[in-house]
Amino acid sequence: MQEIITSTKNQRVKDVRKLAQRKYREVSGLCLVEGLQSVLRAMDQGRDVELLIVAPGLLTSELAQRRLDEHLTQFDTECLYVSDQVYASISDRDNPVGLSAVVRQSWLDLSELPVDGTSLFVALYEVKNPGNLGTIFRTAESFGVDGIILLGSTADPYDVASIKASMGTVFSLPVARETSTQRYADWCRERNLTVITTSARAPHSLNTAPWEFPAVILFGSEAQGLPEDLLEQGTLQVRIPMSGQATSLNLAVAAGIIIYTAARNRV
Amino acid sequence: MQEIITSTKNQRVKDVRKLAQRKYREVSGLCLVEGLQSVLRAMDQGRDVELLIVAPGLLTSELAQRRLDEHLTQFDTECLYVSDQVYASISDRDNPVGLSAVVRQSWLDLSELPVDGTSLFVALYEVKNPGNLGTIFRTAESFGVDGIILLGSTADPYDVASIKASMGTVFSLPVARETSTQRYADWCRERNLTVITTSARAPHSLNTAPWEFPAVILFGSEAQGLPEDLLEQGTLQVRIPMSGQATSLNLAVAAGIIIYTAARNRV
Repeated sequence: MQEIITSTKNQRVKDVRKLAQRKYREVSGLCLVEGLQSVLRAMDQGRDVELLIVAPGLLTSELAQRRLDEHLTQFDTECLYVSDQVYASISDRDNPVGLSAVVRQSWLDLSELPVDGTSLFVALYEVKNPGNLGTIFRTAESFGVDGIILLGSTADPYDVASIKASMGTVFSLPVARETSTQRYADWCRERNLTVITTSARAPHSLNTAPWEFPAVILFGSEAQGLPEDLLEQGTLQVRIPMSGQATSLNLAVAAGIIIYTAARNRV
Repeated sequence: MQEIITSTKNQRVKDVRKLAQRKYREVSGLCLVEGLQSVLRAMDQGRDVELLIVAPGLLTSELAQRRLDEHLTQFDTECLYVSDQVYASISDRDNPVGLSAVVRQSWLDLSELPVDGTSLFVALYEVKNPGNLGTIFRTAESFGVDGIILLGSTADPYDVASIKASMGTVFSLPVARETSTQRYADWCRERNLTVITTSARAPHSLNTAPWEFPAVILFGSEAQGLPEDLLEQGTLQVRIPMSGQATSLNLAVAAGIIIYTAARNRV
């Protein structure tokens, strides 16, 4: 039996805990993954798992145990066995499954995203809330979106709250980032993408918009939406028809309605 | 000038703070409302505002000041003036607007919800997360839903997180609660409502479902969805067509897509 770490002050354990902070994630290029569904999705990316953290006292899920055994048979991943108490010092869950993973972040350059005639991407400009970000990943994966593009200074998809909200889909969807909106605009033009933007005063109702693919749906921040210059780049500007007095929908809800409608018009 | 309360231990201030806890909200029938948009919506319900809390040192919004003055001209609402520090002890906001309200909760009985030929309601069974609940209120208001029905033991719509996520729409949408699912089923039958339920194996795709009104869209809890007996009561069972591997959408996102589609088919 492997030795079990019982001190929360163990250096390896301290290093894992630091991954809760964005700066340590950026320096290391790693992230900490919790929650059974997210860990299993991360494991699907086999070679990107750098470390597994196992609390034998908590690991009662047969599925988790089986997938852990399979992973360790196939890959030479290091495994850290820890006490329940040490695990609790790493975990932010109320009912931890006893299996976490340290996973290498995966980032593409825009030029690495494959584009074909039916491609559909989602681009997010300055989205600030990691929960919203993760929820949009989850929605995008559910409707077959081909990749996510993060523009400007967005929240970190590898934040623990984003990974949780995404149900681990941050590991299965290609994700690119681009700080220059000019380079992003060039990429859209070169790849002949329909750029779909949303605003209350857009000419096309979502119900009757003339969808064309390949396309990218661009969303702005929760508080500000899209800045004028990005809004104007939209080659298909749509509005969600609403009848109430609320000024706007929650960003993740609006994204859900538009992604669903775009996916429905894709075939 | 009104006297300004400077002690966080003032009994009135302590009573207001207690409204963060559900048990005190239930005993008193009151709730605490923060955030400019939510406070303004609550003020639209004039007589239900029992107390206003004002921090003159923080109240820089002209809109807030104007609406406060208008409200006090029209209604005899008591106003508590407090120091910035006392206000901070009540507020959960980073940049508080300096105006909060204690508002009487409004609950209807099912029999009090008016039903006509085009009515659309949303019923939520055992939804647990106040943020999800509030987000669904916000979506429902945006698409002209006529009322929300809470079934079983749901989260409290008057929780501060729910009010915030709802942008105050908990104060503009009629809300009924019913602990007996039998009484709810009787109401649906008596009012001749189409009961719309959602599951992955439902016969109708959302895109092509034969909508009929009046209708109620029923959603289950985040973790469990709807129990079998409630699912079977669905007279129009729909599925959201998905192409990815994610097992499910976030509840508020799924609700957004279905409410949007129902509203679109309403005319």
